[in-house]
Amino acid sequence: MAFEKNETVRKLKEIEAKRSALAHASGLLYCDGVTVAPEDSTEGRARTTGILSAMEYELAASPETQKLLDELEEHLDELDEQERREVKVLRRETSKITKIPAEEYMQYSMLVSEASDVWIRAKNRNDYEMFAPYLEKIIAANRRMAQLWNPDDEPYNVLLDSFEEGLTMTACDEFFRTVRREIVPVIDKIKNVQTPHEPFALRNYPIEGQEKLALRLMELEGIDPRRCVLGTTEHPFTSGFNNHDVRITTHYHENAFLSSVYSVLHEGGHAIYEMGGDDRFNYTCLYGGASMSIHESQSRFYENIIGRSRPFSDRLLQECRVLFPEQLSDVTEEAFYREINRAEPSLIRTEADELTYSLHVMVRYEIEKRMIDGTLPVAKIPEVWNDLYEEYLGIRPENDRTGCLQDSHWSGGMLGYFPSYALGSAYGAQMLARMEQQVDGLWQAVAEGNLTPVTSWLHEHIHQYSALYPPMELLNRVCGRFDPSYYTDYLKTKYTSLYHL
Amino acid sequence: MAFEKNETVRKLKEIEAKRSALAHASGLLYCDGVTVAPEDSTEGRARTTGILSAMEYELAASPETQKLLDELEEHLDELDEQERREVKVLRRETSKITKIPAEEYMQYSMLVSEASDVWIRAKNRNDYEMFAPYLEKIIAANRRMAQLWNPDDEPYNVLLDSFEEGLTMTACDEFFRTVRREIVPVIDKIKNVQTPHEPFALRNYPIEGQEKLALRLMELEGIDPRRCVLGTTEHPFTSGFNNHDVRITTHYHENAFLSSVYSVLHEGGHAIYEMGGDDRFNYTCLYGGASMSIHESQSRFYENIIGRSRPFSDRLLQECRVLFPEQLSDVTEEAFYREINRAEPSLIRTEADELTYSLHVMVRYEIEKRMIDGTLPVAKIPEVWNDLYEEYLGIRPENDRTGCLQDSHWSGGMLGYFPSYALGSAYGAQMLARMEQQVDGLWQAVAEGNLTPVTSWLHEHIHQYSALYPPMELLNRVCGRFDPSYYTDYLKTKYTSLYHL
Repeated sequence: MAFEKNETVRKLKEIEAKRSALAHASGLLYCDGVTVAPEDSTEGRARTTGILSAMEYELAASPETQKLLDELEEHLDELDEQERREVKVLRRETSKITKIPAEEYMQYSMLVSEASDVWIRAKNRNDYEMFAPYLEKIIAANRRMAQLWNPDDEPYNVLLDSFEEGLTMTACDEFFRTVRREIVPVIDKIKNVQTPHEPFALRNYPIEGQEKLALRLMELEGIDPRRCVLGTTEHPFTSGFNNHDVRITTHYHENAFLSSVYSVLHEGGHAIYEMGGDDRFNYTCLYGGASMSIHESQSRFYENIIGRSRPFSDRLLQECRVLFPEQLSDVTEEAFYREINRAEPSLIRTEADELTYSLHVMVRYEIEKRMIDGTLPVAKIPEVWNDLYEEYLGIRPENDRTGCLQDSHWSGGMLGYFPSYALGSAYGAQMLARMEQQVDGLWQAVAEGNLTPVTSWLHEHIHQYSALYPPMELLNRVCGRFDPSYYTDYLKTKYTSLYHL
Repeated sequence: MAFEKNETVRKLKEIEAKRSALAHASGLLYCDGVTVAPEDSTEGRARTTGILSAMEYELAASPETQKLLDELEEHLDELDEQERREVKVLRRETSKITKIPAEEYMQYSMLVSEASDVWIRAKNRNDYEMFAPYLEKIIAANRRMAQLWNPDDEPYNVLLDSFEEGLTMTACDEFFRTVRREIVPVIDKIKNVQTPHEPFALRNYPIEGQEKLALRLMELEGIDPRRCVLGTTEHPFTSGFNNHDVRITTHYHENAFLSSVYSVLHEGGHAIYEMGGDDRFNYTCLYGGASMSIHESQSRFYENIIGRSRPFSDRLLQECRVLFPEQLSDVTEEAFYREINRAEPSLIRTEADELTYSLHVMVRYEIEKRMIDGTLPVAKIPEVWNDLYEEYLGIRPENDRTGCLQDSHWSGGMLGYFPSYALGSAYGAQMLARMEQQVDGLWQAVAEGNLTPVTSWLHEHIHQYSALYPPMELLNRVCGRFDPSYYTDYLKTKYTSLYHL
């Protein structure tokens, strides 16, 4: 039978549209659940989410979808660049699903759903024993899935690749070795010259003012409020359904106003990326960004590289003073800049500063490797976790709640996901070097509160392409080969100057 | 092949669970769109809604569903009461869908989606001509669908029945004739003794205080905040996904605080009904109440019969004074009660008082009858609308914006829906008569701000059953045969006393 290109591609787009509609519905259910839904509504939402995910499985595994992909793969040379990439991404995604028997897929969905509930309770009660049997099953299931997905590679490589196309343990090992070698000495030096928190950081900032500040920060970031709205939740996140419908969230603490400031800048960075993809990627499997690490490179760019830079810091202080004149009356620009960049070994990843952040990720990476290759029994995880914190950061958690129970990822079945956080930070530093070469007056504009040159550059080189290129290829196109020394140099220069080391 | 009851019923429940999940997702998309979604996100939401509705069609029309229903219908006597009703309701629903060819169904969905957008613009511009071609098509499509659904009955009867099982033009004509005969003379008398608005009603009530008042009213109504939350929107509504997940909405106007007060009491009444259904109806086609008119009987019960009663009025004034002491310092209980019950012919249905409300509905009913039987051309609707307002209410709209373009129903394809609003009010009055016979100390409790006796009675007789009984059968079980004189007597007694007629 002759290959009817137009008709076959039309059918492909139809499948992608269905996939995108189911993702929109599930994503909205999630957003709703953690922002405005009534407290006791969990059960109904879990049921609906389960049924929608079964529909996603059916769609991916259906003979029609598979036949269509087979047919298109035989005629790749007749497709344009975007169509070829859609076929590749959809094949990658559906084969991850279809290689797992339907029954196992459903059982795994139920396992992680239950494990997530148990994890929250275990964390609140500081009870690792309670969570351990679930983690045991999740590890076993991931090892098995990795073998089904690709029996020819080491399971942890397969898991890394599933979150970040092309990522390997070899690459991660090299990256983290460099980070550790370069950064740990800086952290050690800072310990000897550390000063207390600035008093302003601990004062009371009423929520109402913080809400206004959050909207002002979104405005400064250039976020179009007709396409992106802000909500409130416990653990901030960003959700995008298409480039005209993005949600960001933050949380407010009266005695720690900087927490929301940097949440908004971070999630705002994700949102700008989600809104920056070309219209042609909406409702296709290419919408939403190249990968998790590229996404983090963008969010952490706005949060840290711009948001914690001296030019932006001075401007930010001005903005904060408009809303909190009393609390900030006695603060100098220097003191403000030092406080937002205070570096100190700590126990909680999500609250870590820019300098120590990657070491938190490294602890998790080392543990995951050993979990998956079978050399670390589940019962030993808390001890090894604490040992690694002591080794890398020089402090030891006193309990599992602030230790190995702090993150949700494992309970949600996300093993192999953490390295993207650190890689994203490193990609951002390399992008900055290129941006500084190419954009005249970059920091002058930032000092004036004008982020347009930053966003325009990122849009031209990153955002517009969404997932058209695999993450590493995208980075190569913009900055050449990945080189972690941009990142370590950036951190060393910044912190040597900040702490007069 | 032998009939395997358990297995067949299990499959039925599975289909209902899917249907319920799709309804949950679509319902949430709607809620999101009119409360928190970004302004420019309409297109993506319309696409997702369209795809989910196609999935609903597929599920209803699938040979599996049809075969299952056939099989169960052959063995009705082996099913319990709830199972039999599920089969009946699901058959009614799926046959409405499957009698329309898939292509026509999709085209109609697209038509009403487009017409809704056009209607909003037409209303804002006061441009009936703009909307007329869409209304023309919607009327034609409804006439055709009515014939497909039931070729043996008059089309408008079929449409009435589709919203309210068993409702006919004969029943509506009789009902509205009674209402008109009894109520119009009362309205005429009031015209001669009308006094101006009380000054307090027009004062400024800051939104923040109104928000607190709304939450306090929900508390007074006995609404569990872990199952039901309040949002803000332009046109208030209630959505329920299961008895643990209900959303109500309101709107705030600084210079008309009573608007939100009565919105909250009204939507709260819907919410109490949605939360009051037994757990066994969750995720089945019986969840959500017996019908639109029974639903309105509940919402209008809390809004009017309780909410505008003298005992509640006095209590409400106390509650409002806590939050607005200045604005309400000079108001007597008598003046407050008169103001919340002020009756006056007006142009907008949703803002009409309890006395004139049914006449607004009657205008729409008379027009719909003639639309559907083909005796009223679309071009003539504005004129006939205005004539009927003049005839029934004694005032004539000056433009179509406050005339026949005011309601969204026709643009959404809902022809035959309006009568339920008036019927609901009448059912409520009949329920009140029975409640007063059966509940000792009813009004004493209400005066103390205790609505538990009201809600308990409604729960016992109405709420717990959800859609287990057809609406008229439910009413019969509680109150005997429907008799509109309860309603007209209730209104005549109340307004004769209020206006000293």
